[in-house]
Amino acid sequence: MVYLTRREHFNAAHKLFCENWSEAKNEAVFGKCANKNWHGHNYELFVTVKGEPNIDTGFVMNAKELSEIIQENICERLDHMNLNLDVDWGYEMQPSTENVAIWIWKELEKHISECKLHCVKLQETDNIFVEYFG
Amino acid sequence: MVYLTRREHFNAAHKLFCENWSEAKNEAVFGKCANKNWHGHNYELFVTVKGEPNIDTGFVMNAKELSEIIQENICERLDHMNLNLDVDWGYEMQPSTENVAIWIWKELEKHISECKLHCVKLQETDNIFVEYFG
Amino acid sequence: MVYLTRREHFNAAHKLFCENWSEAKNEAVFGKCANKNWHGHNYELFVTVKGEPNIDTGFVMNAKELSEIIQENICERLDHMNLNLDVDWGYEMQPSTENVAIWIWKELEKHISECKLHCVKLQETDNIFVEYFG
Amino acid sequence: MVYLTRREHFNAAHKLFCENWSEAKNEAVFGKCANKNWHGHNYELFVTVKGEPNIDTGFVMNAKELSEIIQENICERLDHMNLNLDVDWGYEMQPSTENVAIWIWKELEKHISECKLHCVKLQETDNIFVEYFG
Amino acid sequence: MVYLTRREHFNAAHKLFCENWSEAKNEAVFGKCANKNWHGHNYELFVTVKGEPNIDTGFVMNAKELSEIIQENICERLDHMNLNLDVDWGYEMQPSTENVAIWIWKELEKHISECKLHCVKLQETDNIFVEYFG
Amino acid sequence: MVYLTRREHFNAAHKLFCENWSEAKNEAVFGKCANKNWHGHNYELFVTVKGEPNIDTGFVMNAKELSEIIQENICERLDHMNLNLDVDWGYEMQPSTENVAIWIWKELEKHISECKLHCVKLQETDNIFVEYFG
Repeated sequence: MVYLTRREHFNAAHKLFCENWSEAKNEAVFGKCANKNWHGHNYELFVTVKGEPNIDTGFVMNAKELSEIIQENICERLDHMNLNLDVDWGYEMQPSTENVAIWIWKELEKHISECKLHCVKLQETDNIFVEYFG
Repeated sequence: MVYLTRREHFNAAHKLFCENWSEAKNEAVFGKCANKNWHGHNYELFVTVKGEPNIDTGFVMNAKELSEIIQENICERLDHMNLNLDVDWGYEMQPSTENVAIWIWKELEKHISECKLHCVKLQETDNIFVEYFG
Repeated sequence: MVYLTRREHFNAAHKLFCENWSEAKNEAVFGKCANKNWHGHNYELFVTVKGEPNIDTGFVMNAKELSEIIQENICERLDHMNLNLDVDWGYEMQPSTENVAIWIWKELEKHISECKLHCVKLQETDNIFVEYFG
Repeated sequence: MVYLTRREHFNAAHKLFCENWSEAKNEAVFGKCANKNWHGHNYELFVTVKGEPNIDTGFVMNAKELSEIIQENICERLDHMNLNLDVDWGYEMQPSTENVAIWIWKELEKHISECKLHCVKLQETDNIFVEYFG
Repeated sequence: MVYLTRREHFNAAHKLFCENWSEAKNEAVFGKCANKNWHGHNYELFVTVKGEPNIDTGFVMNAKELSEIIQENICERLDHMNLNLDVDWGYEMQPSTENVAIWIWKELEKHISECKLHCVKLQETDNIFVEYFG
Repeated sequence: MVYLTRREHFNAAHKLFCENWSEAKNEAVFGKCANKNWHGHNYELFVTVKGEPNIDTGFVMNAKELSEIIQENICERLDHMNLNLDVDWGYEMQPSTENVAIWIWKELEKHISECKLHCVKLQETDNIFVEYFG
């Protein structure tokens, strides 16, 4: 079993805010992230798949195809978007790094067939990242 | 003469949009950056000052003081803000990386007295940065 | 289960030296790290916690709180310190990256309650890092 | 159990090409990587070993010795080489990042005795890396 | 005057070799870089232009257009190529980082019209880069 | 004229302290950097030379020779040293990043003959670096 990771990125705006909380509570919990006019990040996305290398190609999966799957299903929907306004997550969702990573996993899982999705790592800043293994 | 650089950062939302242009022209020129619901970046800011090192300290300028000047005058006003809505630039300004760097220069210059401001470098993504030397 | 990682850093001096060994043996084993006048590093610290994201916040744990816990319990005690002279480890300890990482785990574990500490990764240089999982 | 990682690097040329495929199929699968005149990469290699820190040294393994083992057994054989022409892999092998990582594991395993080899991570570009755990 | 830099990259093979020198002299001067079977690098390319920001856009130059000019005129000709065999430099040229940077300058200069080309920075490894200012 | 930069590094301990000042003044000016038991850094050193590329080699200067000059004259004297105790600067010197960079310039200048030394850049942390141009 070999693990292959492909990095992609997208830039997006978001805010962290609970509509059913007071502004004071929002600010106490989320701090500056609750600014109602949004802020944003350069998100770095690392997608890891696992499998046996193919005899002919030596590939667990063609990294170019993996890149295209991530581009089409994730980056085109999130890049230069507002994560609170522009994305239909399929359910009501706070756009925290954790929740966006879980959503990315679910979207990618449908499209990885020749090997297995292993990890979605989403980096919000140089100081904060999350990992989800399904 | 020695050049001292201090790095700071801030996260912000913005969009690039000319109000007196059609939506089509805005999209043709700015592409995805014109998304009216905003997007955002992790901005890296490098401020360079120049001068002679002090005999006792060996410092062109105390890097901790330089950091505080940048924090108070720049980061506190831009971090987790919407660069189109939340910042009073003093004049109407497209919040491009170029224009924000020039504004940062003007704000910092007032507060650097013991040596000279040399360069403001503002990095929007790993692939794009600007430098302004006054 | 989602894994959240927060990066912090501290700068410190140390030496690697066994008091009950000869200088020759110390130099044979530790090389330049045995210099009795100390050397130092910029340590990068990555702390990973794991748990279920909260429904309201989308957080495994508030990254700002995690940062404060690391700052108060680790960085304030190690930053700009001499790891051989200035830190009371609670027991006699060679300040190798491995041992410092284990100590950081033990200190942090007491303060992480709403989710579980998963990993302490401590990077001594760009070429050397250790990971401890408890 | 503590995990210690040492980074090394090497620069090499390679191409991805199946001799028993048509040029058209090679290009369809490998794209520009099939260029018969070769291309190349700066490979970053991260080797992780695991074990209990030694009481005296605090080391899972002496990082300098680990570095020497990697240098002698891997870098001296791969650095500034053509991975298709200059390396005797011991068997016919497509020099994909996956296959090279597996080969590195097998070569290193023979030389790690005081602790256990845990992971070989090989990074081909900033966007692609693989990990092999034996 | 503001300076705008755009980063692109390409992967290529090359060797450093003087045909009219003996193998011994080639090895003495170029070391492992003279391996006749080639080696390769991940090249990072930073192109800097300078000018006054446009009133409407705030741009010295549209970074997307700058990226396209670099892609079409440089990366498509160098990426995944052998710098000794696959590129028609227009004259006989040792493919050192210095010479490739000068060639990139000459090719880009023809296509930068709305502002001025200022610098081509070409990074061969993390440890070596060159800059050319025309 | 082409500019060639070579990166090297060294790890060292130091403190910033004026013997003829009170402890209170030392702490007011230098903060934690005045800890009398030392702290330390991973220093990154970038040395830039400038000249015309040689017709045969395409080199401004052989980067391997530049590396050896830096290693022999700088790194062997500073790596794993205490910058206050172990280095004979030739005069009394506060080991600030600024002063160390100036000293490195003076030591290197004697050994660069085939082209000209242009810049010594010394990085103390990811957030602070200095540049000296002679």
